[in-house]
Amino acid sequence: MSSSSSSQSALGQAEASSSRPPNRSATIEDDNSDNEGSLLASDPLEHALPEQLSFKRKQKAAASSPFRLFSPSAPASSRSSPLPRNGQSRLHQLRTNARASDSTELILNYLDTPGNAGDQLQDTKDATGLDWYVEGPGRRVGYDDLTAIDWIFEYAKERQRLRYLYAGAQGIIGYIKQLVDASQIWLILIGTGILSGGIAAFIDVASDWLGDLKTGYCRNVDGDGRFYLNKGFCCWGYTEYSQCNDWHSWGTAMGISSKGGRYVVEYVFFIALSILFATCASLLVREYSPYAKHSGIPEIKTVLGGFVIRRFLGAWTLVVKTLGLCLAVASGLWLGKEGPLVHVACCSANLFMKLFTSVNGNEARKREVFSAAAAAGISVAFGSPIGGVLFSLEQLSYYFPDKTMWQSFVCAMVAAVTLQAFNPFRTGKLVLYQVTYHSGWHDFELAPFAFLGILGGLYGGLFIKLNMRVAEWRQNRTYPKSPVTEVVIISFVTALVNYPIKFMRAQASELVYFLFAECVDLTEDTLGLCKAGKANTAVITLLLISALMGIILASFTFGLQIPAGIILPSMAIGALYGRAVGLSVEVVQQAWPGLFVFASCEPDVPCVTPGTYAIIGAASALAGATRMTVSIVVIMFELTGALTYVLPIMIAVMISKWIGDAISPRGIYESWIHFNGYPFLDNRDDNGSSIPDVSAAQVMTRIEDLTVITATGNTIQSLRELLSRYRFRGFPVIDNTRDAILLGYISRAELAFALTSALTPPRHLDESTEAYFSHQPLSDPTTSLDLRPWMDQTPITLNSKASFQLTVSMFQKLGLRYVIFTDRGTLKGLLTKKDVWFVLNGMEDRDEDTSLGRGRLREEGVNEDSEGRGLLATPTDDDDSIVGADALR
Amino acid sequence: MSSSSSSQSALGQAEASSSRPPNRSATIEDDNSDNEGSLLASDPLEHALPEQLSFKRKQKAAASSPFRLFSPSAPASSRSSPLPRNGQSRLHQLRTNARASDSTELILNYLDTPGNAGDQLQDTKDATGLDWYVEGPGRRVGYDDLTAIDWIFEYAKERQRLRYLYAGAQGIIGYIKQLVDASQIWLILIGTGILSGGIAAFIDVASDWLGDLKTGYCRNVDGDGRFYLNKGFCCWGYTEYSQCNDWHSWGTAMGISSKGGRYVVEYVFFIALSILFATCASLLVREYSPYAKHSGIPEIKTVLGGFVIRRFLGAWTLVVKTLGLCLAVASGLWLGKEGPLVHVACCSANLFMKLFTSVNGNEARKREVFSAAAAAGISVAFGSPIGGVLFSLEQLSYYFPDKTMWQSFVCAMVAAVTLQAFNPFRTGKLVLYQVTYHSGWHDFELAPFAFLGILGGLYGGLFIKLNMRVAEWRQNRTYPKSPVTEVVIISFVTALVNYPIKFMRAQASELVYFLFAECVDLTEDTLGLCKAGKANTAVITLLLISALMGIILASFTFGLQIPAGIILPSMAIGALYGRAVGLSVEVVQQAWPGLFVFASCEPDVPCVTPGTYAIIGAASALAGATRMTVSIVVIMFELTGALTYVLPIMIAVMISKWIGDAISPRGIYESWIHFNGYPFLDNRDDNGSSIPDVSAAQVMTRIEDLTVITATGNTIQSLRELLSRYRFRGFPVIDNTRDAILLGYISRAELAFALTSALTPPRHLDESTEAYFSHQPLSDPTTSLDLRPWMDQTPITLNSKASFQLTVSMFQKLGLRYVIFTDRGTLKGLLTKKDVWFVLNGMEDRDEDTSLGRGRLREEGVNEDSEGRGLLATPTDDDDSIVGADALR
Repeated sequence: MSSSSSSQSALGQAEASSSRPPNRSATIEDDNSDNEGSLLASDPLEHALPEQLSFKRKQKAAASSPFRLFSPSAPASSRSSPLPRNGQSRLHQLRTNARASDSTELILNYLDTPGNAGDQLQDTKDATGLDWYVEGPGRRVGYDDLTAIDWIFEYAKERQRLRYLYAGAQGIIGYIKQLVDASQIWLILIGTGILSGGIAAFIDVASDWLGDLKTGYCRNVDGDGRFYLNKGFCCWGYTEYSQCNDWHSWGTAMGISSKGGRYVVEYVFFIALSILFATCASLLVREYSPYAKHSGIPEIKTVLGGFVIRRFLGAWTLVVKTLGLCLAVASGLWLGKEGPLVHVACCSANLFMKLFTSVNGNEARKREVFSAAAAAGISVAFGSPIGGVLFSLEQLSYYFPDKTMWQSFVCAMVAAVTLQAFNPFRTGKLVLYQVTYHSGWHDFELAPFAFLGILGGLYGGLFIKLNMRVAEWRQNRTYPKSPVTEVVIISFVTALVNYPIKFMRAQASELVYFLFAECVDLTEDTLGLCKAGKANTAVITLLLISALMGIILASFTFGLQIPAGIILPSMAIGALYGRAVGLSVEVVQQAWPGLFVFASCEPDVPCVTPGTYAIIGAASALAGATRMTVSIVVIMFELTGALTYVLPIMIAVMISKWIGDAISPRGIYESWIHFNGYPFLDNRDDNGSSIPDVSAAQVMTRIEDLTVITATGNTIQSLRELLSRYRFRGFPVIDNTRDAILLGYISRAELAFALTSALTPPRHLDESTEAYFSHQPLSDPTTSLDLRPWMDQTPITLNSKASFQLTVSMFQKLGLRYVIFTDRGTLKGLLTKKDVWFVLNGMEDRDEDTSLGRGRLREEGVNEDSEGRGLLATPTDDDDSIVGADALR
Repeated sequence: MSSSSSSQSALGQAEASSSRPPNRSATIEDDNSDNEGSLLASDPLEHALPEQLSFKRKQKAAASSPFRLFSPSAPASSRSSPLPRNGQSRLHQLRTNARASDSTELILNYLDTPGNAGDQLQDTKDATGLDWYVEGPGRRVGYDDLTAIDWIFEYAKERQRLRYLYAGAQGIIGYIKQLVDASQIWLILIGTGILSGGIAAFIDVASDWLGDLKTGYCRNVDGDGRFYLNKGFCCWGYTEYSQCNDWHSWGTAMGISSKGGRYVVEYVFFIALSILFATCASLLVREYSPYAKHSGIPEIKTVLGGFVIRRFLGAWTLVVKTLGLCLAVASGLWLGKEGPLVHVACCSANLFMKLFTSVNGNEARKREVFSAAAAAGISVAFGSPIGGVLFSLEQLSYYFPDKTMWQSFVCAMVAAVTLQAFNPFRTGKLVLYQVTYHSGWHDFELAPFAFLGILGGLYGGLFIKLNMRVAEWRQNRTYPKSPVTEVVIISFVTALVNYPIKFMRAQASELVYFLFAECVDLTEDTLGLCKAGKANTAVITLLLISALMGIILASFTFGLQIPAGIILPSMAIGALYGRAVGLSVEVVQQAWPGLFVFASCEPDVPCVTPGTYAIIGAASALAGATRMTVSIVVIMFELTGALTYVLPIMIAVMISKWIGDAISPRGIYESWIHFNGYPFLDNRDDNGSSIPDVSAAQVMTRIEDLTVITATGNTIQSLRELLSRYRFRGFPVIDNTRDAILLGYISRAELAFALTSALTPPRHLDESTEAYFSHQPLSDPTTSLDLRPWMDQTPITLNSKASFQLTVSMFQKLGLRYVIFTDRGTLKGLLTKKDVWFVLNGMEDRDEDTSLGRGRLREEGVNEDSEGRGLLATPTDDDDSIVGADALR
């Protein structure tokens, strides 16, 4: 049950043993100075660096520490308050574990890393022109990998850019410049829409063909090779597949005549090709882009929440995910392409954004475009542009201003129109499983519809629990070590199970199509769903078995190292049990048509449409798994195109969400975010009671535990030593040690850059040069270093008596990275986004499995957390031990 | 062009002459102590009240003021910065004008006013239980009419309530209690949906019947009176109206045989009944509920933005608006019921909310419910539940968290289903103008579609300008004085014009139906829109004339004292010019079918569908007027039910919005908000460059201009005198006059309540009792008054060097009422929501008509603005000089 794994070993440098169960100690490579006691009690460097203050509260002699005098007004009561003990002590461990002692190479390394912070300074300078950041929020260098962005700063930067654009360019030329600037975003969105639509069409066609290849191949009667056609196109024009002679099953092709023999040969081919496709997908992912695995939605949520994950949306990820998706879908594994298509669309957007520096240079605008692109992904997955917009709004987006909605809509619509133009199914329909129903529902059916909602909630809650158990097991497994081996095993088992069961042999999208369909619309009852009367009991049993098998297989599949979504499997499972319930109701109704509940049925007309139960079941299962509501109803509404069934779908979705929430409070994506330890601060539940009712002072990192910089008395050398000793992401700056008045906050990246550029030409200052953070009227600017331009002189501060709830609101709504707490101007403490995340998630964990998600952030710093392990390891695309979700642990 | 009007005279007490053009000086009633100079230089009370500090910067001797020492660190540069001069000086006037010298009666009056602040304290106490507010945000009394709410406080209160609910109730009983609590919101939403759907059906039926009554009445051949039937139901079963003998036009009924005579009689009846209906609507509004006038959407936007307008959503408003709407629609005036239906739905929600104190007691939760109810309004107006949700999201809502979306959706869907169940048109369709098209569009049509977008933008921009001119004229008009007379005149002119022009004689919704329809679907070409070939040129001319007349009439109608929306008139105008363009294209195509652009047309099949041009024209006109995007496309999508026309609609909407924004930056609702001076802080354009690039210090009310309270040295009497002298909504509290360290902020309402309750039993303290705001260890609680529980001890503060943009973000995203600026703990200044609003709107005005919207807030206070003129006048429902929009000026 330990959450450590072999893939984390490269990331454990900053970890230390602690009083918590040492279940992760095996991962520590470098513990010479990480031990809490030794570092705190007798750090040899502590006295060598008098300029950097550490208000560290000594663990063993806290009361007698001479530094305690720096918090004269902190009431003793708040420190000894009983409530926050738990959270505070945990946080404290987190802080004290983080004293890494990397050499000064770190910062040099950091500045040399290509594509890293230093490179982007030039952009920032160019884009914004002059010295607006000298006062106020301070200059910035770019973001490191795996850090949080500063929304406020990014939007301020964008406003400034626009101001220069509008002020600097008058007349016609100016107008054209503005027009060009404004049109860039639309070019990106339209490009994204077209590319997403095209890729979706390609995946549809390619995965269909590959999937059909498992059963046979196309060769027309003249013997011409037409292997490039899938079964549908091969048999185009035939009303029933049985009449189609162009399609040759493998059994026939091998020339085997006996029925049993054909079955065996075809079974073997089916299994072999399934394994082949799945293995290829897995190898593609392992060799070329580990970020292409899984659905990508948890990561996109995290990115949109303001986190930087480099290469996650790169071109290489796009290619691998697209190809891998074709193979993975064709392999017949219980996975879907819907979620991954969102990732594909975001990658496409990233590709087009690279062409326009004004968008690409602003992390906040990039996230707006990603929100829009995500809508395009769902739009092409379900042929539901509005559903896509609402999906993006409901499930993914963090900031979703008005204009993003319109942009999402444009992008989603262009993608849908493109897909329709490609017309991959040659039916004129956007998705295979689009349906129309001819009749309405009766009042008595509300009972089974509500029952479907209950089933959906049960499915969702239990599936999430099961899937998370599997994910835990996977992390700690001894066999199979290799993710590829695991894929081989799972695909073998899946194929073995799928082939004999006719419902599971079909591709999931085809299965859903048949389950949704009304019997009168089907020309050929391939799956035998439209039998009459009592014969249905066997079908019902088979449907339920299939649903159960589907749940088990899907919970093993979602989490494999292949591109795989959970939306379609959920829909298929829901459609299976939905159709089963529908058939049951039909059987009962046909057996006892005189029962009073069936009084509203007209005679001679089929009263129950089992297909509608399938669609409601699918909606309920989707709601149970993902906890979305509006988007699911709208997607289903757009699939059926009628208001008729919206009310029952709504009821089922609502019940399913309630029950799902009761069983497992997090949806599947949030569970994965939690499992992977992504620093995602959910801003949804801002009215909920999950935020502990404490004052911020009770959870903040107190000044005693902070490493701060004084305004004067520092040299370049001492600051560089500070940087090399502490890996915190930033440092509060105070005026002096006597009264600790807060002056500002300087981030590690900016401080490092400023120091290095001062040492190098053209300034070429000496290491012993004085560096200061306050106005020094007598200092000579050529022989001293004024760091104020790099300092945030207006950090967001709160009164230390403010409630933690208010603090969380500030983080959520303003997109902050840190909040500094003061009292009457005196620095009192600090909370970072990750501290907040930790408190919220730590508290939430109480009634869940405690081995999950805990301790993932322990190696991180106190001040603003230093997650930058990407800086220590060599980030190359083929090193999957540090990229992907593991890199965040 | 002066914005002062007679109706403002009661509100002008606090105004003063200033250096600005004294165009409003006529409204000043009481200027004995309001003169800036006299007040500032020699206020007789200034020395009598040493306990209350005024850091007032003297206008004439600013530099030598002894109080300047309280801002030692404020850099001189920021004060003499050239940029903010304009804004600052204007703000300064605003501040200095506000020194009203009302007697102490004010506060007593205030506490006695029924339904006012004091009354609600009990609720607050009950709901939240214990003493959680003693420290932190402070205790609160309720909100006054016309004040801003504190979102953060409301949400904190709700969290606290939930915490008590969950903590206090364990076991089954507890679970049931929680369930009951959680289900309240759903009961409200379902009730609102059903009531809204029912009212919409009633309005449909009643206005149809009344409208048809203008032309005749129903009496079947047997002579039975069936006057209660409208024309449609009267002639039910007949394929053409001409065959229907049950419907008797007034000419026939009067027994007039000559055709000319009949025409005249019917014309007269038409005009007379039009005027009668309009006058009745107007009288209803004037006599019973002035808030029922207009569309209500600007006010709802303001309310949802966090403003309290009492009685605006009352039951009486609901009744009057419903009845008035039937009459107004029937009168044939160029107005619609769509916008007002949103108001109706919000009133319905308010009605149901009154049943549940836990929702009704929280202003933030109430606003969430109103957001949801607004969706129901649009849902029943257009039969477009998803469009309603998006309308609420895009146009109205300020805070729209995830759960509000689902709540909106449920409410909108219930309303739509209810309306469908009532089936008011007996067609099974939700709205009269729902259509289906049978063919797609051709590439060459994109050019005319884009042209429609241009027309839409021109219409929107010019209509808004025209409508605002009319509104200005109306404010300053000499004749007609009475709004009712004006309604009579406009309805007379409208009827005079409407009758001879066949397109305008029809009800707007019918007109839209015929314009949207494809000719093959019409059983009877009532309006002669489906003629062939060259005959169309006359129709085109008439369509364009109708559109032009519609624009003129609508711009006079929107703003009358009757319930009136602008959505349907805009759609009708757009459909008129759209159909005209469509017919033109059809004529050209039929005349020269061989032209290369028409190559994609199939022979023998109608190539151009003019109805689609009408729907695209309607969408473009709506976009031009309201500047909505996604919701319009979705509404049109739901009306036509096909993806086919979404792309051209999108293009037209986009172009229209661009052009409209270029002509008139504000949409019609925002223009009215601006015109009425509502304190609405738009949080949409958070990336725009409209926020001036200054530091907050340059626009804030500086400490020199603030009236502050010291922590000690006050008595109850001195504080009461302070309250009676200054009408500010709140006061910062500092520790002492020497270093002005900020301790907190106390609002007027809380201070007044605390003082009064201290003077009255059970405490019964003496007026000379000491009142303090800081910890006084030696004071006796029975003989002194500790005001800390009433003070916000953790007000949101910002560094005074922070940018104004950051300040605006804080206001927008956190829903603040004020921000206090400090530097190293020292109070530096204050910005209220209204100050921010003023700066934003003042700056925005530059290139617009400067006489609009300016100076409306001048009479208001500096600290937190005191808008409470409702307290001075007697607020009764029939006094329409102080309620409605005027009350806010």
